Amino acid sequence: MASIAIIHGPNLNLLGTREPGVYGSVTLTEINRRIEAVAGDHVLRFFQSNHEGELIDFIHEAASWADGIVLNPAAFTHYSIALRDAIAAVKLPVVEVHLSNVHAREDFRHHSVTAPVCLGQISGFGWRSYVLGLHALFGYLEDRP
Amino acid sequence: MASIAIIHGPNLNLLGTREPGVYGSVTLTEINRRIEAVAGDHVLRFFQSNHEGELIDFIHEAASWADGIVLNPAAFTHYSIALRDAIAAVKLPVVEVHLSNVHAREDFRHHSVTAPVCLGQISGFGWRSYVLGLHALFGYLEDRP
Amino acid sequence: MASIAIIHGPNLNLLGTREPGVYGSVTLTEINRRIEAVAGDHVLRFFQSNHEGELIDFIHEAASWADGIVLNPAAFTHYSIALRDAIAAVKLPVVEVHLSNVHAREDFRHHSVTAPVCLGQISGFGWRSYVLGLHALFGYLEDRP
Amino acid sequence: MASIAIIHGPNLNLLGTREPGVYGSVTLTEINRRIEAVAGDHVLRFFQSNHEGELIDFIHEAASWADGIVLNPAAFTHYSIALRDAIAAVKLPVVEVHLSNVHAREDFRHHSVTAPVCLGQISGFGWRSYVLGLHALFGYLEDRP
Amino acid sequence: MASIAIIHGPNLNLLGTREPGVYGSVTLTEINRRIEAVAGDHVLRFFQSNHEGELIDFIHEAASWADGIVLNPAAFTHYSIALRDAIAAVKLPVVEVHLSNVHAREDFRHHSVTAPVCLGQISGFGWRSYVLGLHALFGYLEDRP
Amino acid sequence: MASIAIIHGPNLNLLGTREPGVYGSVTLTEINRRIEAVAGDHVLRFFQSNHEGELIDFIHEAASWADGIVLNPAAFTHYSIALRDAIAAVKLPVVEVHLSNVHAREDFRHHSVTAPVCLGQISGFGWRSYVLGLHALFGYLEDRP
Amino acid sequence: MASIAIIHGPNLNLLGTREPGVYGSVTLTEINRRIEAVAGDHVLRFFQSNHEGELIDFIHEAASWADGIVLNPAAFTHYSIALRDAIAAVKLPVVEVHLSNVHAREDFRHHSVTAPVCLGQISGFGWRSYVLGLHALFGYLEDRP
Amino acid sequence: MASIAIIHGPNLNLLGTREPGVYGSVTLTEINRRIEAVAGDHVLRFFQSNHEGELIDFIHEAASWADGIVLNPAAFTHYSIALRDAIAAVKLPVVEVHLSNVHAREDFRHHSVTAPVCLGQISGFGWRSYVLGLHALFGYLEDRP
Amino acid sequence: MASIAIIHGPNLNLLGTREPGVYGSVTLTEINRRIEAVAGDHVLRFFQSNHEGELIDFIHEAASWADGIVLNPAAFTHYSIALRDAIAAVKLPVVEVHLSNVHAREDFRHHSVTAPVCLGQISGFGWRSYVLGLHALFGYLEDRP
Amino acid sequence: MASIAIIHGPNLNLLGTREPGVYGSVTLTEINRRIEAVAGDHVLRFFQSNHEGELIDFIHEAASWADGIVLNPAAFTHYSIALRDAIAAVKLPVVEVHLSNVHAREDFRHHSVTAPVCLGQISGFGWRSYVLGLHALFGYLEDRP
Amino acid sequence: MASIAIIHGPNLNLLGTREPGVYGSVTLTEINRRIEAVAGDHVLRFFQSNHEGELIDFIHEAASWADGIVLNPAAFTHYSIALRDAIAAVKLPVVEVHLSNVHAREDFRHHSVTAPVCLGQISGFGWRSYVLGLHALFGYLEDRP
Amino acid sequence: MASIAIIHGPNLNLLGTREPGVYGSVTLTEINRRIEAVAGDHVLRFFQSNHEGELIDFIHEAASWADGIVLNPAAFTHYSIALRDAIAAVKLPVVEVHLSNVHAREDFRHHSVTAPVCLGQISGFGWRSYVLGLHALFGYLEDRP
Repeated sequence: MASIAIIHGPNLNLLGTREPGVYGSVTLTEINRRIEAVAGDHVLRFFQSNHEGELIDFIHEAASWADGIVLNPAAFTHYSIALRDAIAAVKLPVVEVHLSNVHAREDFRHHSVTAPVCLGQISGFGWRSYVLGLHALFGYLEDRP
Repeated sequence: MASIAIIHGPNLNLLGTREPGVYGSVTLTEINRRIEAVAGDHVLRFFQSNHEGELIDFIHEAASWADGIVLNPAAFTHYSIALRDAIAAVKLPVVEVHLSNVHAREDFRHHSVTAPVCLGQISGFGWRSYVLGLHALFGYLEDRP
Repeated sequence: MASIAIIHGPNLNLLGTREPGVYGSVTLTEINRRIEAVAGDHVLRFFQSNHEGELIDFIHEAASWADGIVLNPAAFTHYSIALRDAIAAVKLPVVEVHLSNVHAREDFRHHSVTAPVCLGQISGFGWRSYVLGLHALFGYLEDRP
Repeated sequence: MASIAIIHGPNLNLLGTREPGVYGSVTLTEINRRIEAVAGDHVLRFFQSNHEGELIDFIHEAASWADGIVLNPAAFTHYSIALRDAIAAVKLPVVEVHLSNVHAREDFRHHSVTAPVCLGQISGFGWRSYVLGLHALFGYLEDRP
Repeated sequence: MASIAIIHGPNLNLLGTREPGVYGSVTLTEINRRIEAVAGDHVLRFFQSNHEGELIDFIHEAASWADGIVLNPAAFTHYSIALRDAIAAVKLPVVEVHLSNVHAREDFRHHSVTAPVCLGQISGFGWRSYVLGLHALFGYLEDRP
Repeated sequence: MASIAIIHGPNLNLLGTREPGVYGSVTLTEINRRIEAVAGDHVLRFFQSNHEGELIDFIHEAASWADGIVLNPAAFTHYSIALRDAIAAVKLPVVEVHLSNVHAREDFRHHSVTAPVCLGQISGFGWRSYVLGLHALFGYLEDRP
Repeated sequence: MASIAIIHGPNLNLLGTREPGVYGSVTLTEINRRIEAVAGDHVLRFFQSNHEGELIDFIHEAASWADGIVLNPAAFTHYSIALRDAIAAVKLPVVEVHLSNVHAREDFRHHSVTAPVCLGQISGFGWRSYVLGLHALFGYLEDRP
Repeated sequence: MASIAIIHGPNLNLLGTREPGVYGSVTLTEINRRIEAVAGDHVLRFFQSNHEGELIDFIHEAASWADGIVLNPAAFTHYSIALRDAIAAVKLPVVEVHLSNVHAREDFRHHSVTAPVCLGQISGFGWRSYVLGLHALFGYLEDRP
Repeated sequence: MASIAIIHGPNLNLLGTREPGVYGSVTLTEINRRIEAVAGDHVLRFFQSNHEGELIDFIHEAASWADGIVLNPAAFTHYSIALRDAIAAVKLPVVEVHLSNVHAREDFRHHSVTAPVCLGQISGFGWRSYVLGLHALFGYLEDRP
Repeated sequence: MASIAIIHGPNLNLLGTREPGVYGSVTLTEINRRIEAVAGDHVLRFFQSNHEGELIDFIHEAASWADGIVLNPAAFTHYSIALRDAIAAVKLPVVEVHLSNVHAREDFRHHSVTAPVCLGQISGFGWRSYVLGLHALFGYLEDRP
Repeated sequence: MASIAIIHGPNLNLLGTREPGVYGSVTLTEINRRIEAVAGDHVLRFFQSNHEGELIDFIHEAASWADGIVLNPAAFTHYSIALRDAIAAVKLPVVEVHLSNVHAREDFRHHSVTAPVCLGQISGFGWRSYVLGLHALFGYLEDRP
Repeated sequence: MASIAIIHGPNLNLLGTREPGVYGSVTLTEINRRIEAVAGDHVLRFFQSNHEGELIDFIHEAASWADGIVLNPAAFTHYSIALRDAIAAVKLPVVEVHLSNVHAREDFRHHSVTAPVCLGQISGFGWRSYVLGLHALFGYLEDRP
């Protein structure tokens, strides 16, 4: 039974309540509920912040209780070297997820500074990206001796 | 009668009190007073922060009460994709303003990651850039059916 | 009481009479009238040309009678170093204006070769960009000892 | 009940039988078996080729029987515009998968010419990338009205 | 029966009379005659200028009488955004033609700023490029409902 | 009386039968028929392949019977140096044609690795690009002593 | 007797307690103690934060009491223009220090946006980089008239 | 006895009468007089224009009477491919001259599109650059069989 | 006694029979004979293909019988990441050879995507490049314990 | 007791005697004296040369007697790969020092080809950079088991 | 009466004696004689070296006796920052000269690292470039108060 | 019977005596002996220098007695345009050799400024690269009429 942190980066608090056309009609609460639904006995802790520093602090703390992280760094994906260093420092397995297919959007969204220090990246499947990310993490933990 | 948020990015709290040679001798309080002076019946709310996350939070909240935003993203202009995403998400009309002519400064200040999701950009007219920005916003709101 | 040159660059003669979808339904004559309407006692002289050389000649002459220039360099913004040199040479205060938000259009429209030698740049507010530019110029002249 | 094509690009035939250090000790046959194991009633057809043209031909044909594709374009990810055009042409939902975390390898592996015309991309989870890709595809098909 | 403008850009007035080795021995007058020869009942008007502004003026006027344009922008192909904007503004179908194969010459001749707002581009067939361009235009006009 | 090879690159076999919105409603067979219709006594041989190697083989063989080639390299235009070398090696006159105006599409489609070794390039006129290409080739052959 | 701020950027709170292989086995507390040990009568104030905004706020405040700053901007070195502007604004002498030799790490760590507004940069000597930085600052203050 | 065209590009008409600090206190008339002073029996014709097209026309005409050209293309140096093509077309020996040392100014002034088709370039010696250019041309003509 | 694969990439089948000026007058058969002549007791197997996939298949198979490979990837040198991956996968020692000095040709031929996974590269010595490559391979095999 | 080489690169012989404004008024002899003053019992050997080859030779020899090097490569910092290879080859600990803050000067001075093979880099503290460099080296030698 | 150093960079000792096609048939001795011929009463000292260090040493010494330098840095033009620093350090007026028109040669010869610290640059006039350079220097010295 | 210069660039004097792990355990003397061993009746002269100028001088002299050169330019490969010009000037056939596979090392080692003026390049085979280079040269000399 694993403890997993589910971390949502900047602007994701707006999901569903505003601009359903862009962000889909599913709220962050609802996404968290759907992730929870597939977690079985595993313990999940959810966190959202628009503050880079709070995300870093949370990742640091997660090192003391979590077995892994599912992280949607949102806009920070593309420039927050501080977040990258935090991920590298705590040495937890991290799965990077994105709601949209970042490779099909503006050029500056094609490059991830965080992905190279994560296990892998899943992008383009809406709220399911999180669920797939959680399964990826479970698979990884299962394989670990 | 519109409600407008006037948002000042990082380091702008230092205006006037320090380095008059660089930043001019007008303080942020004085700039706010001068903006207020041209606002007539319109309601203005002022906000300054050196924290990217606080600026994003404030923009999110502004969506519930403001008709538009005059924003000086300062240094964040050039790298805060999170701020850009916040502007795009709230769908308020935003006018980007700069005290100095950013196009005449260092190369890295020529490019704005926030301007493409704003109505437009005004740069180079000192404290008047804010006043011009407010007028630009009023004009835009007036034209809107 | 100031004398101001209002200069329109290439293709702006087509404004309003053609392609209202792209260029808006306001003609250049109408834009000039609206600018005039806010000029008060100040004297305005209007000029439009599709010829880089004529724009340069006009700026040279303006040096003998104008107190400042509101200039929409249109396409020349992005490559006419000759226009830039003309602006730098006459040493009049020049405000660069654009109807559309150039920062939100094609990549090659993000860079201005003329803005570094202007007071500042205003872009994205349709015909109001000119009015804002005129006010910016008045403000500048007012501040000048 | 959906019909899904599972397509493996160049050099993936060598999986497991050679270089367990690099490619893991799981053979392509075994990977296919594990994908099959999670497919339930859905029909899967597997294909591997080292020939760009054969992959394109297979994708063209898949348009007549498949509901979606899980594709590991391997090295073609980074330069085969022909494969990209094939994906775009058949208009089937395609999920791009990679065994390794391509974002953590050589620079030339960070860019995908195929991902922009896929639903999304999953990379870094070994053979599980395929299983996650299949689930992503099932989710997508389920949501489709 | 269509009215077509045939426009020749800078330095093309020198064709044939000078440097037969580079420009061929066919004069511009002769090229115009050969184009005329294939025009049948269609009305052609020819124009050559070394002045970017005159080419823009001519394109603006053509909007009132022409059904389409065959344009050899010559050197302006590679930097005249003003010419590009003129083409986009008049909304006439324009075929870009080049005597030489620009893709086989200096690097700076590989990129066209005008082609993206034209129907298409024909380059490399000497004076026949114009004839092919005229046929391309006729075909386009024929297809138009 | 000339013998001409008409070569269609990858994915062009899908023309017309699929995605009329993108590719037009004309099939490859119909395009070939229309090309044939203007060929008069000249002998045409048609070839399509999604395999770079087959296209190269065909071009090699064409050297023994063809007087020239009309080639739509499709996606290979942008990266197949092998195709370029094949064209250069056989020394037949080759006209590169494209259905769409490649200069108005994604950046990576603006550059052609094959055009520098062709007579010229025609792009943007749909199926007529082939017909124009054939005429360009006839013109070239006619001029050749 | 000078007052000096010793500022540690993001993730440096993890020093020593985690990952001795990467970060060394010396904790931040221990590093601070060692810096203190060489400070003699000078007053040092230590600050660490993972929040860019807090670092900026602290630098602003330091302007009212400090004679200089020894700053390890960590990841912010490479993108925080806001931090750069804060340093430039307060006009205190700042020495930039790095534990590792940033010039020998990933390419994106070779460039510093903060160094150009600092006195100088010291990188590569582990905890001694701070001690050397403090001595550099003392030397600078000593030389100042 | 040679006939030489001395051609001055855009904004050079302002020399000396304005901004002596930047352009020196020597007027264009005075420069022409000084050039004349060293010309001996040779015939000089002077021309200045701010219009690219007029410069091209003048160069075309010069082909019928001049033995060589001393040309200061000013701002056109850096982008006027049309001027370059005019120089290449008339095949007269042309010496490119600049008042200032263009290699010591802004980056965009380091590159010349015209110099590759000139005999050579002389920059940085004020009005003497013209005199040196004239001597360079005389030397070239002398050597020519 | 070693078994060596000699592999020739695209268009090399044309050697000697066509274009002696470019490719030399030595045919591929003759080159193979000359390589054979220096092979002594070693067993050579020759393979040529214009198909990237066939080259990859052949390299895969070679892993079961060959001690090393002399490979001229021809045009594939510059873009076939699939070929590179095949070389890396089979872990045979591979010597990359080129007839011409690729470093003295077009810019795009200076970069090799395959060389980094080969033992080394030999270019510029015509058919002798193969013979030198074979000797390089023998030397390598000799040194191997 | 360590033996240390203090090496000064090109043009540093001019220090102090010329251009006090740029290089400071301290001569190289005086700098050497000040470095000596802090060396205690350690043995220092000083060397200056404007010849890349002599610097390399000296570094090679230093390998036989020195425990470490304090090196100011001056202009060679930015292009002498030969110097870099010399440093890497002798495997002595080397500290790179610069009088000025190279990160605040021309762009081409921001990049160091030598720093990646040094322990670290100290720049911006005038003659004190050497003293700090020496201390850095002593610290390093002290830590070494 | 001025004392002038005439400095020839690497490989210029070969002038005339070898490769008259490339370097002209005039030897360095003869060039020096021709320069001498126009020097009148002025004292010239000639120096040639293939060693960057010797050129720097010579420039350093020249500071004690010369009034100016005519320098052909040859290949060092494009990379010797050490030579640039030497020129900047001695503060003598230096005229950079080139035999060939470097702007018309390979791309890497278009950029000069030395020209920005020289008075100006003269290139393309063979041995006359030196004579013109000497005259440029005399003119400069004459103007100097 | 040919006379051949074998030239070793900077740092190669250290071969074998130091760092066997990096440079191999074979000394330069031993390498020279092994080269000699395959030279038969041909006369070899060996030269090593860490001075760019000495290598250029030696190449100049070699023009008077050598039939060809085997050159390992080491670090100079990547920036010494002066060495390149020396090779081009003497017009001797030169074979560029490298001990390591430069294409598999740091990016800056992938580009050679000297290779374009050599016959060809051999890299990656340790001391055997020299022997292969000598054979390449013999082959070339043999073929020469």
